[in-house]
Amino acid sequence: MESVENMTGISDNREIRRHRVADAEVTLVRDGEPLAGHEVELRQVRHRFLFGCTGFEFLDYASGTSEDPERDERLLEQWEGLFNFATLPFYWGRFEPERGKPDTDRLVKGAEWLAGRGHTVKGHPLAWHTVTADWLLDLDNAAIAAAQTDRIRRETTRFAGVIDTWDVINEVVIMPIFDKYDNGITRLCRDIGRIPMVRMVFDAARESNPDAVLLLNDFDMSAAFECLIEGVLEAGIKIDALGLQSHMHQGYWGEEKTLSILDRFSRYGLPIHFTETTLLSGHVMPPEIEDLNDYQIDSWPSTPEGEARQADEIERHYRTLVSHPAVEAITYWGMSDGGWLGAPGGFVRADGTAKPSYDRLHHLVNDEWGQRPTTVATDAEGRLRVSGFLGDYRITWRGEEIDFALDEVGEQRLTLEI
Amino acid sequence: MESVENMTGISDNREIRRHRVADAEVTLVRDGEPLAGHEVELRQVRHRFLFGCTGFEFLDYASGTSEDPERDERLLEQWEGLFNFATLPFYWGRFEPERGKPDTDRLVKGAEWLAGRGHTVKGHPLAWHTVTADWLLDLDNAAIAAAQTDRIRRETTRFAGVIDTWDVINEVVIMPIFDKYDNGITRLCRDIGRIPMVRMVFDAARESNPDAVLLLNDFDMSAAFECLIEGVLEAGIKIDALGLQSHMHQGYWGEEKTLSILDRFSRYGLPIHFTETTLLSGHVMPPEIEDLNDYQIDSWPSTPEGEARQADEIERHYRTLVSHPAVEAITYWGMSDGGWLGAPGGFVRADGTAKPSYDRLHHLVNDEWGQRPTTVATDAEGRLRVSGFLGDYRITWRGEEIDFALDEVGEQRLTLEI
Repeated sequence: MESVENMTGISDNREIRRHRVADAEVTLVRDGEPLAGHEVELRQVRHRFLFGCTGFEFLDYASGTSEDPERDERLLEQWEGLFNFATLPFYWGRFEPERGKPDTDRLVKGAEWLAGRGHTVKGHPLAWHTVTADWLLDLDNAAIAAAQTDRIRRETTRFAGVIDTWDVINEVVIMPIFDKYDNGITRLCRDIGRIPMVRMVFDAARESNPDAVLLLNDFDMSAAFECLIEGVLEAGIKIDALGLQSHMHQGYWGEEKTLSILDRFSRYGLPIHFTETTLLSGHVMPPEIEDLNDYQIDSWPSTPEGEARQADEIERHYRTLVSHPAVEAITYWGMSDGGWLGAPGGFVRADGTAKPSYDRLHHLVNDEWGQRPTTVATDAEGRLRVSGFLGDYRITWRGEEIDFALDEVGEQRLTLEI
Repeated sequence: MESVENMTGISDNREIRRHRVADAEVTLVRDGEPLAGHEVELRQVRHRFLFGCTGFEFLDYASGTSEDPERDERLLEQWEGLFNFATLPFYWGRFEPERGKPDTDRLVKGAEWLAGRGHTVKGHPLAWHTVTADWLLDLDNAAIAAAQTDRIRRETTRFAGVIDTWDVINEVVIMPIFDKYDNGITRLCRDIGRIPMVRMVFDAARESNPDAVLLLNDFDMSAAFECLIEGVLEAGIKIDALGLQSHMHQGYWGEEKTLSILDRFSRYGLPIHFTETTLLSGHVMPPEIEDLNDYQIDSWPSTPEGEARQADEIERHYRTLVSHPAVEAITYWGMSDGGWLGAPGGFVRADGTAKPSYDRLHHLVNDEWGQRPTTVATDAEGRLRVSGFLGDYRITWRGEEIDFALDEVGEQRLTLEI
């Protein structure tokens, strides 16, 4: 029986094999008889694992208002070479700068367009003290709470079926003690406390979209986020996944730190999304900067040495995360350079060309962990063995296609009528 | 009417006056008539505010096993010149190194002796992962939990009436992720979670001594401790006071940081104890040391410049804490030099002589904030005005004494029969 397993790296990493890979014996049947001794084409159509990135860049293109559609199409092709999971922006201060005039239509167009291309779409964030609506400052705390929950119900209802994954609330650890500037969400959170705040926004989202995957997202990887999570769970609030940011503007964490974080945050038995990952291909930010936003420079170039380093670190980071069973998603923060802080954090340079990190991740996702179209022969019982990452697969035989999914790790048997 | 207010500093600090000082009009009555135009002596007997320190040093003396009773007597006199609140050690690994053989008698003697001298006595700590009993490592987690709660019930029951203030659990923020060495308490806390751990130990202590003041104590002044507190309170666990450690081996925090910490931790409406305060009279520890225990040096001398600095910082620190209404206690960690890490953190040098910091705090507690015996005359209605820190006072007239308490800040009237 021929075995299809071109994913060399899988064999190298026992953890990845153990947590990500199905070993299926697939029997092909035609008109009740085994399709014995035939050549068929096998390919993976989609990873179960959520390889994600921001999709902000495509909102104008999806709405037909792009200033440079050709550039966007090239970027889209690059994006889809790596990813199946797009995060769209719902920063309240930009989404609804004037109360009652939300930017809904443009976001609906973008979300439906991405979903129509087969991507899972996520909204980020529904509640956050940063980039929140300025007009909250004119309200008292009870009115801020009402506006916040109304906003959450509005978005989760309107986008249900298209966006069913939400960063419901962002950075609660610092929320009530955030002191850079006054804002309505910090006022409210300081008044009612972190856990009642989390309960309020999760209740609103859950009520409007009971099927959604709702995340609690934070950049604080210290024991503070653990304590928050434990308090939230003890209070009986249902969290579907934990979002761990990982902006590494001050340097790659390395495997040891990353695994230690995974060890600590996987204790709760919840799926983990790495929600905001960045690795730079230029110089890294000095270690003494505490709030990354304080680092403002005129130019932050991508360099050849930086790009080589970034490619290595991307590979190490993705391998580490994919090897851990709790991780269900990795969202890279910014496909192209020049995003947040102007940092060279993209897979694609400002001129649109791919960096080495792009090729490295492309190889991992599509070759080592994916399944390129491959011709394989069934044995005398019509069987072939498929060893591959969980996800959707397609077998083609004489122009006919049959799709199937590898949904569980380990040994399994499937019979497919073709 | 003569007014007694020799506390110059009170007038200097509006906050201290507002939160600490009673302005009482005291009318003295003798046989139903006002004691008009008489000279009496007024003095404060005891501060309501808990000025505390470790009392570890007196356990041998109290048990009659001191190696140097004269030294201990001198130290006791110094100690009682500043303090009314003693913390005794209940580190499980030292209290009960062999299971079933606790060091109860020695601690009972010490606690009763201190209480008999009029001091409030506190026990520290009932649960902690550091210096815990090694024999817990031989037990499974259920048995560790049983041993821990048995231990708490045993101590809180045996010492009730003598020790009614307990650091029930210490350093929960780091407890389940403490990785310096294996220990039973970290194992248990990691298994059941921080909040169930806190609930378990508080329930045991509360059950055995319902009248005790039970503290949740931590060194972590970050948002992590806030998140822990919020989770604990949301879970319905009753905390009587928050313990904030303040070992300042890396330098005095300064007023701004101290007030910011007080601002954050007073949000819960709970009394605050500064439980472990240290300020050095030698060089401070380098800032790059993360775990203070990692700093091991042969000799850490007290220096003249360091002593001058320490005296200033002691005064600033105590003034800052006393000015904040949430603070009910300050416990200094170690009367003499050569305590934890061999640091010169005491008020008293290794040779037993008092440092400038001793004199500075002595002046604050006894002169500026206290009331030395003072002769004062009642007016034609037998009245005198007493403006002073909350606490117990005594008036003496012709060898007769009458005690009274100033229990509430602000204006009040008292009539005393003498």
